Amino acid sequence: MEFITGIKKKDTSEISDILVNGLSGTVKINGFIHTIRDMGEVAFVVLRKREGLVQCVYEEGVTGCQLKELKEGMTVEAEGFLHEEERAPQGFEVRLSKITILTSPKEGSMMPLPISKWKMKTSLETKLAYRPVALRNIRERAIFKIQEGIVRGFRDFLYSQSFTEIRTPKIVAGNAEGGANVFKLEYFGSKAFLAQSPQFYKQTMVGVYDRVFEAAPVFRAEKHNTTRHLNEYTSLDFEMGYISGFEDIMAMEMEMLRYVFALLKEKYAKELLLLEIKLPDMSKIPTVRFDEAKQLVAEKYSRKIKNPYDLEPEEEVLIGKYFKEEFGSDFVFVTHYPSKKRPFYAMDDPTDTKFTLSFDLLFKGMEITTGGQRIHDYEAQVAKMMARGMNPDEFTNFLMIHKHGMPPHGGLGIGLERLTMKLLDEQNVRETTLFPRDLSRLEP
Amino acid sequence: MEFITGIKKKDTSEISDILVNGLSGTVKINGFIHTIRDMGEVAFVVLRKREGLVQCVYEEGVTGCQLKELKEGMTVEAEGFLHEEERAPQGFEVRLSKITILTSPKEGSMMPLPISKWKMKTSLETKLAYRPVALRNIRERAIFKIQEGIVRGFRDFLYSQSFTEIRTPKIVAGNAEGGANVFKLEYFGSKAFLAQSPQFYKQTMVGVYDRVFEAAPVFRAEKHNTTRHLNEYTSLDFEMGYISGFEDIMAMEMEMLRYVFALLKEKYAKELLLLEIKLPDMSKIPTVRFDEAKQLVAEKYSRKIKNPYDLEPEEEVLIGKYFKEEFGSDFVFVTHYPSKKRPFYAMDDPTDTKFTLSFDLLFKGMEITTGGQRIHDYEAQVAKMMARGMNPDEFTNFLMIHKHGMPPHGGLGIGLERLTMKLLDEQNVRETTLFPRDLSRLEP
Repeated sequence: MEFITGIKKKDTSEISDILVNGLSGTVKINGFIHTIRDMGEVAFVVLRKREGLVQCVYEEGVTGCQLKELKEGMTVEAEGFLHEEERAPQGFEVRLSKITILTSPKEGSMMPLPISKWKMKTSLETKLAYRPVALRNIRERAIFKIQEGIVRGFRDFLYSQSFTEIRTPKIVAGNAEGGANVFKLEYFGSKAFLAQSPQFYKQTMVGVYDRVFEAAPVFRAEKHNTTRHLNEYTSLDFEMGYISGFEDIMAMEMEMLRYVFALLKEKYAKELLLLEIKLPDMSKIPTVRFDEAKQLVAEKYSRKIKNPYDLEPEEEVLIGKYFKEEFGSDFVFVTHYPSKKRPFYAMDDPTDTKFTLSFDLLFKGMEITTGGQRIHDYEAQVAKMMARGMNPDEFTNFLMIHKHGMPPHGGLGIGLERLTMKLLDEQNVRETTLFPRDLSRLEP
Repeated sequence: MEFITGIKKKDTSEISDILVNGLSGTVKINGFIHTIRDMGEVAFVVLRKREGLVQCVYEEGVTGCQLKELKEGMTVEAEGFLHEEERAPQGFEVRLSKITILTSPKEGSMMPLPISKWKMKTSLETKLAYRPVALRNIRERAIFKIQEGIVRGFRDFLYSQSFTEIRTPKIVAGNAEGGANVFKLEYFGSKAFLAQSPQFYKQTMVGVYDRVFEAAPVFRAEKHNTTRHLNEYTSLDFEMGYISGFEDIMAMEMEMLRYVFALLKEKYAKELLLLEIKLPDMSKIPTVRFDEAKQLVAEKYSRKIKNPYDLEPEEEVLIGKYFKEEFGSDFVFVTHYPSKKRPFYAMDDPTDTKFTLSFDLLFKGMEITTGGQRIHDYEAQVAKMMARGMNPDEFTNFLMIHKHGMPPHGGLGIGLERLTMKLLDEQNVRETTLFPRDLSRLEP
């Protein structure tokens, strides 16, 4: 009988192994052939590895293969001598003694995009059409390492604050956010929907674990074709019990972001540098009431208030501008949104029930978070449903938690792709989405 | 202007704070009233907190409130004196001076389940119908802490092995696993599906990062109503390039599981104890060919081979039994599944193309993982599609990676709920699913 006992040590090295072990002696590495620059006597064969590029030097008669056998897009195993070389990507190069071809691309195929260029200078449309290969570009793939770091920081911070990670269903019978923006599907003869948010479930789980979070896809059938909207995106949700007010939620978010940026600085320094990202100052975040914020920008930027119940995208931009100019802050919490525009589970401000105990977080003039305190009392929740013409009988499962007791609680949802977009100063949320889903895009 | 500067320190303590700070002096804690046991002069008011239960002692005339005002399901803030008490859940009790009611359940509501009992002794049906409150039971909630630990270990281990976490779309245009078991939805006038697996996308991302993983929901419209099937579940997927063979994938999985169990032992000891979980021995995992495994159990347990191309659930049970009896192992890798029963992207064994370079991992007689090496060559992939009567033109986006070059690669998918189920020796996968989705269950 044969057994698997664990990972066998490979005889190939990664870039970090080489940098640790020292730049001398022989080495065996594998990777994609990223580019070949034929200089006559020698040629530079640049390998693309997960940690970066490695410059290999091919020399006629020394390297045991014909240069013309090599082709971009092949994967190879290369052996050679390590040499310090300041001008090479990692400060070293490999003078090749041998190259073994592992795999080859299709005969005669041409890359549809110049992925080995520093910036591809192609339209977003083209990049998205060829996403599977466009992502092989060094800058493109760095974007999603940063995104990984954000989610990782989100989770690690919340673990440290005694939150429990949950996994809630995406196929649901009813929808928390209401409205028509919901995808429908057939479910064995029943009508079902794709979850617009984990709202009901995360509130439910506060009754179990006090503090919970989830980082998972949500689905919105919005017919908006803008630079800010996606029909499927990743929502970073947390929900916490025993709060004294919704300020506790804002404080938790702020420290989470602080932790995320510190993690990026520590573990994703290479990508921060590569993408020229300047991390925002996180010493404090100003808070302003919704109605005051509207007034402030109307005055400062001589703008008429058209819709008193919601912020227009342009107003968000101006609020962002205002707080950047006045307080040097990339972030601003806008609080006390009108009840009219907030969902039925939002808790009204007892001092003025036209407003809710809620907030949005704007980052460089764009909403990236919506949060607030929720109603915990059964009678209050039923009353608010009734006032909105909703039928509480359709929400028996949700109301079960109010019926049997819930602590004061609240939480928030963060749009991961938007947060990444604003951090990178990108202009379109599709740039920071691995495989975006929008009105016209279902592939790749 | 007001600012948020960070989390304010609370004046309430958690159980771990109390155990660290010592069992004397006064303390303020909050929590759910889990049970009230009225003994006449005194009463035990047990609070349920996220870390466990806390015994509070109410004394008539000493505690500043009326016992009859208190009710199970309330959330409260309690103040009192700490006392060591061996018989209390955490080794201490709080002698109450004051209780403040934070929130109350609905007037006159009765708990539909005895959630404060150690074992609820109710049917699975009833537990699922009242899931939002059933999960408040101490044993029930411990199950999903263990599940959190599994996912956490999966991710942390793979980070340590230079894997990158990815987020792939769940609304897709085509489906990797084929067959009729797919949920359909309307997507702005187009036909779309819910992803049965992240297969195409994770292979694609191997071309970008070499090693990738995802822990996310997948959707199967299977009409099976069994103890092992769910229509939505969490798939733990990883995919890796530059493999020497599919043995590399099995080795990676084995070390991942070893890491997960070590993490559970370190950080989830309380839950392991509570659920009486015995972690499996992970020193080695036997591997056996599919055809040999079939033969072995047919002989040992005098069983006729009915279907030579697939393992029946009963055969999986017997294979599990065999390797437990013969080698003391809860796990067994079954390798070289017939090509006929594996998907079109599976690589055939060059020495016998009736079989594939693939494997399943059985845990206590149940398949919890399917994995294998994938085809990386464009012509080979197109040929296999054609041989199966598939039209390669429908897979242009997937084939883009083969066309422009892919390293030798492979990977696997693990059913999180099944892994949890077998670890806990549960008999039904719904027991280890927070909010299960099956043929008849779309709520809660």
